[in-house]
Amino acid sequence: MKNNKILELTENALGRKVPTIANGQKQIPYMGVGKYKPTGFKHAPRIYSCADYPADGNKLVKDLKEALIRCGIKDGMTISTHHHFRNGDLLAVQIFDIAHELGIKDLVWFPSASFPCQEVMTKYLEDGTINRIEGSMNGALGKFCSEGKMQGIGVLRSHGGRYQAVQDGEVKIDIAVIAAPTADAFGNATGDRGPAACGLLGFALADSQYADRVIVVTDNLVPFPCIPWQIHGNYVDFTVVTDKIGIPEKIVSGTTEITKSPDRLLLAEMTAQFCIEAGIVKDGFSFQAGAGGTALSIGIYFSEYLRQNKIKARYVRGGSNKYLVQMLEEGLTDYILDGQTFDLDGVRSMRENINHINTSPFTSYNYHGKGNFSSMTDVVILGATEVDLNFNANVVSHSDGYVLHGIGGWQNCLFSKCTILPVPLFRDRIPVIVDQVTSLCGPGELIDVIVTERGIAINPKRLDLIDALKHSSLPIKTIEQLKDEAEKICGKPEKPEFGEEIVALIKWVDGTVIDAARRVLK
Amino acid sequence: MKNNKILELTENALGRKVPTIANGQKQIPYMGVGKYKPTGFKHAPRIYSCADYPADGNKLVKDLKEALIRCGIKDGMTISTHHHFRNGDLLAVQIFDIAHELGIKDLVWFPSASFPCQEVMTKYLEDGTINRIEGSMNGALGKFCSEGKMQGIGVLRSHGGRYQAVQDGEVKIDIAVIAAPTADAFGNATGDRGPAACGLLGFALADSQYADRVIVVTDNLVPFPCIPWQIHGNYVDFTVVTDKIGIPEKIVSGTTEITKSPDRLLLAEMTAQFCIEAGIVKDGFSFQAGAGGTALSIGIYFSEYLRQNKIKARYVRGGSNKYLVQMLEEGLTDYILDGQTFDLDGVRSMRENINHINTSPFTSYNYHGKGNFSSMTDVVILGATEVDLNFNANVVSHSDGYVLHGIGGWQNCLFSKCTILPVPLFRDRIPVIVDQVTSLCGPGELIDVIVTERGIAINPKRLDLIDALKHSSLPIKTIEQLKDEAEKICGKPEKPEFGEEIVALIKWVDGTVIDAARRVLK
Repeated sequence: MKNNKILELTENALGRKVPTIANGQKQIPYMGVGKYKPTGFKHAPRIYSCADYPADGNKLVKDLKEALIRCGIKDGMTISTHHHFRNGDLLAVQIFDIAHELGIKDLVWFPSASFPCQEVMTKYLEDGTINRIEGSMNGALGKFCSEGKMQGIGVLRSHGGRYQAVQDGEVKIDIAVIAAPTADAFGNATGDRGPAACGLLGFALADSQYADRVIVVTDNLVPFPCIPWQIHGNYVDFTVVTDKIGIPEKIVSGTTEITKSPDRLLLAEMTAQFCIEAGIVKDGFSFQAGAGGTALSIGIYFSEYLRQNKIKARYVRGGSNKYLVQMLEEGLTDYILDGQTFDLDGVRSMRENINHINTSPFTSYNYHGKGNFSSMTDVVILGATEVDLNFNANVVSHSDGYVLHGIGGWQNCLFSKCTILPVPLFRDRIPVIVDQVTSLCGPGELIDVIVTERGIAINPKRLDLIDALKHSSLPIKTIEQLKDEAEKICGKPEKPEFGEEIVALIKWVDGTVIDAARRVLK
Repeated sequence: MKNNKILELTENALGRKVPTIANGQKQIPYMGVGKYKPTGFKHAPRIYSCADYPADGNKLVKDLKEALIRCGIKDGMTISTHHHFRNGDLLAVQIFDIAHELGIKDLVWFPSASFPCQEVMTKYLEDGTINRIEGSMNGALGKFCSEGKMQGIGVLRSHGGRYQAVQDGEVKIDIAVIAAPTADAFGNATGDRGPAACGLLGFALADSQYADRVIVVTDNLVPFPCIPWQIHGNYVDFTVVTDKIGIPEKIVSGTTEITKSPDRLLLAEMTAQFCIEAGIVKDGFSFQAGAGGTALSIGIYFSEYLRQNKIKARYVRGGSNKYLVQMLEEGLTDYILDGQTFDLDGVRSMRENINHINTSPFTSYNYHGKGNFSSMTDVVILGATEVDLNFNANVVSHSDGYVLHGIGGWQNCLFSKCTILPVPLFRDRIPVIVDQVTSLCGPGELIDVIVTERGIAINPKRLDLIDALKHSSLPIKTIEQLKDEAEKICGKPEKPEFGEEIVALIKWVDGTVIDAARRVLK
């Protein structure tokens, strides 16, 4: 237990106690969906001059260490990385190895997400090289944070919230390090080709645009111009060539097989059936599903329906994978709007198919833009760890109180025209529907349907959906009924014990604080 | 003659007298290539919120007038347009018709260039609807300005300088109106398809990113998503559908036939021969040529050389046209890096060929970025109206003093590794090589070679080129020799008479003032 202070708290619009100041920065409590109106101006990066960059476009320096030194790395800086290599990343740890070697302290690590391959960062969190992580903390890093061992307070943001925070200057990135599967010496970079191809580099877009200094690291240097340029070299200060930036077999996620679990298949089938009966699955519709087995299976059911009815989707949003690629290649959708590539079929399709479109957190998710894509999508199917009786949901912690998952695009997707959470009624005999979620990540007013194996609850606000399903053979119930059923089977589980110390903030898409995670008492 | 005041002047690094204040804004005199170092921050647009935009992405309003009113159009605002429709534009005049109808005064019109089809704007310049044009003034508008009839002082910028001025906040665009050959209701827009297809929309990029309010006007509305999205709807406030945004046959320029003039063909052949002898035309090289007949012909000579030697260019930069498209399709270049599309073959190729790449003033020309493409290009071939003995050149006015042309990408391209100006030794018996250029647009230190039909002058700074050509059969001469030859034939022409009043500033790529145009006395 280090510096996690007992902070002054205020109650936000969802009744959650959240700090007014954290990490020395003023925090705005969550005010409700669309209620907080920003009044300021976007972050204004310094004006640079071509006179300070090589005229021949060759920005190569010897190695990452030299690049970091020439970027002026020093105590207290914020250093960003992206997570497109997922658990195959080889670069993030190297950055902090170098920082440690240089004796630099109090860095803020600002990844778009962290993965188990980065667990060794705990040593740098312990020795003060890193003050805190602002970004999703998966697994061991989340546990470390939850136990109150991190000096600073963790900050969890959605993918869109991360773009918003950078755009709005809430997070000022001093040095962005962008691992690139292919790049040229000028810094133009792409993720869709090269030995460590990962598909998109969209999570590094904000970093490239707004960071003071930008380093591109690649293991596949090509002559200018690197085409496509997902990252513009015009934002890049230095390029570095290294032997290997990622482990290809770990870059693509292992979660892209459809589920074989009968329980999950049932959930998927019920969800698909619900969408069909609600009239959502029609010619020109659009959907987004997460990466899990249940979500993938729903895509299979949708495809079958489209095929039978000789209609097609206008677009499907990915996390792309072989099932979405099959839809595109079979003509069941006009476009894949891809935000992240989950398997090699996705990477290939993005590289080769002009209707497999790169998107970014800016186009899809940024709430502080003039609209974004998520609210236009007809239906999204997401997961949750807990849901309460008001349909508020949790996606970062389980009932044991540990913050172990990132928010990802989850909060952003809630803005779709219909948000469905297929969840098991209980996990390991712990009910998923609860009186109060441990961490409140998504307000119930944006969550329309909970699908469980024992029944489907429609948010009472969605009279249209209730009406559309009134003659359905699907088991439509109230959320209270579902909760009662679960508790009859499992009983009411004990709550975890928490300390008073805030260990992490959970930001809403507009930068306000929707909840705060407390230290888990052992 | 209206408000063109006699301003306080200072001498810049090229000895030109330029104002220290113009249009109420402090001006920085040109300091030399790469000498002015900006210290400020980029323009920071307001932070917007999705809460203020329709969730379904439908930003359509009834017509342009309603869109302008909802954007809050009022006296003194800066309104921007792009020139991708060239002389087929139907929109720019409409904007000011509406402003006039609404009784709005003192607008700044900020086009990326103006064309003869917009000559009627003189009435709005006369009646005070428009205070001034900041942007290239071609033909009648340039004459109007040169005669001192414009209330404010015109400001001429290169394409890159326009991006720089917007990025740096020197020009704050209140309302950008983007004519789009294809768009969706969200505001995603592309120029490469639709009845008024013009290819790129790159000149509107800065406007979309930095303007306070953005209107997209299209005559070809498609369901979301409009692919590709050259302009991101996430920057757009309103979309408008209208019957016709441009006259297709006038959109593509008429200057894309190779020259039949023996004089120009000679210039082209000499220029190509020079490049070959200088060792510039080799495997993997890159070049850019303007749109004129001479420049086009050079591409033909280059192609022939590449074909014969079984080598290819890495990239050619356009203004794309059928000749560059032929090179791409024949495999004589890996890529076209296109900044503007000059004919229908260019538009088709951009739409269909993944190696025909969209660029923008940001990637190619912005001097206040971390490098740009122009300095990486091996050779550019440009025009000029006048060149002086120090190789300083003029591109906006002729010897009669009238500012009749825009700068275009000309200044930006001077940064290439070798800049060649093929020019006739005289035009209408007026020598092109002069003691002092009427307007100084490009510093001689960036201009390497002047090719005329009677000899080629290499800038004495380019010892490497002088050395490479020392045994050439080409007529290598000094610039003084060329000037003497011309004057022997034509005599020394009389200089035009100028008033004291400054009518237009000529900006350098870094926002400093490289020259100022004076009122032409009748």
